[in-house]
Amino acid sequence: MAENSGTGGTGEDAFLAIDWGTTNRRVYRIEGGKVVATERDDRGVKVLAPTDYAAIIAADRRRFGDLPVLIAGMAGSTIGWCDVPYAAAPAGLPDLVANIRRMEGRIAIVPGVSIRGEGASGARADVMRGEEVQLLGAAVSGMVLPDSLLCQPGTHCKWAMMRGGKIASFTTAITGELFALLRGGSVLSAFLGSEVTPDAAFVRGVHEGARRDVAASLFSVRAASVLGDLPEADAASFCSGILLGSDVSVRLEESPGETVFILSDPALGGLYRAAIEALGGSAVLIDSHEAFVAGITAIRKLWV
Amino acid sequence: MAENSGTGGTGEDAFLAIDWGTTNRRVYRIEGGKVVATERDDRGVKVLAPTDYAAIIAADRRRFGDLPVLIAGMAGSTIGWCDVPYAAAPAGLPDLVANIRRMEGRIAIVPGVSIRGEGASGARADVMRGEEVQLLGAAVSGMVLPDSLLCQPGTHCKWAMMRGGKIASFTTAITGELFALLRGGSVLSAFLGSEVTPDAAFVRGVHEGARRDVAASLFSVRAASVLGDLPEADAASFCSGILLGSDVSVRLEESPGETVFILSDPALGGLYRAAIEALGGSAVLIDSHEAFVAGITAIRKLWV
Repeated sequence: MAENSGTGGTGEDAFLAIDWGTTNRRVYRIEGGKVVATERDDRGVKVLAPTDYAAIIAADRRRFGDLPVLIAGMAGSTIGWCDVPYAAAPAGLPDLVANIRRMEGRIAIVPGVSIRGEGASGARADVMRGEEVQLLGAAVSGMVLPDSLLCQPGTHCKWAMMRGGKIASFTTAITGELFALLRGGSVLSAFLGSEVTPDAAFVRGVHEGARRDVAASLFSVRAASVLGDLPEADAASFCSGILLGSDVSVRLEESPGETVFILSDPALGGLYRAAIEALGGSAVLIDSHEAFVAGITAIRKLWV
Repeated sequence: MAENSGTGGTGEDAFLAIDWGTTNRRVYRIEGGKVVATERDDRGVKVLAPTDYAAIIAADRRRFGDLPVLIAGMAGSTIGWCDVPYAAAPAGLPDLVANIRRMEGRIAIVPGVSIRGEGASGARADVMRGEEVQLLGAAVSGMVLPDSLLCQPGTHCKWAMMRGGKIASFTTAITGELFALLRGGSVLSAFLGSEVTPDAAFVRGVHEGARRDVAASLFSVRAASVLGDLPEADAASFCSGILLGSDVSVRLEESPGETVFILSDPALGGLYRAAIEALGGSAVLIDSHEAFVAGITAIRKLWV
C-alpha cells in the first residue's frame, strides 16, 4: 500500500523523517524544509516488535538515501521501539530536542509531551506522541499565532493551547473513538450506518451535545429513531454532532473568543469547523502534513 | 437456569406477571399483592420470534396455574411479540391501562412510556418499556413520595421525575453501556480489568465526571495510568466514577435538593448512591422487585 511521490534532490541538509503511528507510518525525505519524497505504509507500531525497527529503517534508507533519521510518534512509546520519557508541558522545540532519544546509527526519537494530573481540582493528566511536532511546526512556521488554540481532530482529538509558540497545556478527548464504539456494537449501531456530513441534523446534534449530558443525548438518538422523529439518513450526523458539540463546547468555554486553528484533513476538519461555528466560535483549517514537516525540520536544525 | 421459589396459594385475584426483558425474563404468580412463586430464565426477547410467545406462556401456565397474564417490558417492542404503542408522559397507572394491548386468551401487554422530542431547545425524545411498572408501583405503594426523583441504574439508566404519582418526565442515559463499551474494546480496556467499588478512586472519578467533559476525562484514565499516577487497581473505579459523576451531576443540577430514590440491586445502587452523596445529594435504596410487584398488581386491579 505504498505511494511513492518522487526521489529527486540531494541537498546537504537532507534527512529522513518518520511519523510513526499506531496503525500507519509515513516516511519523508526532506531537503531545505521541503518534502522531496514520501511514502505511507501500514507498518504501525502495533504490528511491530522492538527488534523490527532497525531493519525497517535500513530498508527505508535504501529507498530514500543513507541519511540521518528523525522519528516522531508512537515508536517512542511503551508499545513502540523504545520508551522515550515525555517532555513536560509547557514544552517548545528546544524542550523536545533536549529530551530526544539518540539511537545507534544517526537515528533519534522525538519525545512526546505530558501533563501530570493534579487531582480533581487541578489539571487532568494527559499525554501526546507525534502531535507535538505538528503543533510546534505550525507555530514556528507562522501557520498559526504564537498564542492560539489548536485542534487536531481524530480518534483521540487533541486541543492545545499555545503560548509564546510553546505547548502550554492540552486536552485529549476520545471523541472519535466513542463514535466508533457506538457505531460498532452498541444500542445505536443499527441507526448509524449513514455518512456523517455537516448538515442540519449535525448542527442540531452539536447544540444537543453542548448541553454536556452526553450519555443521555446519545440515548435520544435511539428514542427519536424509534419514535419516527429522526430519519435514518440523519441519525449518524446527529450522533456525531452530539459528540463533537460536547467536546467543542467545553473548549470554547475554556477559551472564549479564541479562533481555533484546525490541523486536519478537510473532511474531518470541516466537521469540527461546522461544530465550532454552530456554537459561535470561528475556525480555520491548516494543512497538518505541512505543519509536521515544518516541525520536524525545525527539530532537525536544533538536533546537533 | 430456573430458580423456582414455591407454588403455594390459590387466591381469587391470582394472576401471572411476566417482566420480559431483552436478555432475561421473570415470571411471577401473584396473589393478594404477594409473590407466591417466581422463576427467572434467559428467554429474553432477543432470542425469540413473535410466534414463540404463545407456547412459552402456555408452558408458564402449566407450571404456575391457568391464570390471566400481564406482560411488561420489551415483549411489547418492535423486537418483541407485538409492538404496543407507548403511552405519552405524563403517564400514570390509568394511562398504562388505557393503552394496554389485549392478546388472545386473557393475556395483555402493558405499554411503555414515551416523550416526544421538541428540538434542541426543548425536551429530548425518550422511551422506556418495563421501568414504568416499577416507577408507578413504587409511587402507588408509598415506597417513594408522589413528587420525587427516581433512578433506575443499569445498562441504560433511567431517571424519572414523578409528579402526583405520575411519570411526569424522564431521561435515559447510556452510562452502563458506555462503560461496557470502554471495558470491552477501547484504548482503556487494558486498564479496566479491576472490580468497580465506591472507593476513593471512584469518588475522584465522580468529581472529574461532574466537570461534564466526559470524552476528555476518559482519556485521562489512560494518561494517568501511562504516567504511573493511577494504580491499575483504581482505574476501573475511577473510570466508572467519571461516567456516573457526569450522569448524576446533570440530574442533581436539574432537580436541586431532591432526595433520589434508587430502584436497584444493592451493588449498582450503592455506586449511584455514593456518586450522589459525593456531589452533595442524598439517596435511598428501594427494592426494585417489590416495586415491580406493586405496580403490576395495581395494573391488574385496574384491568377489567
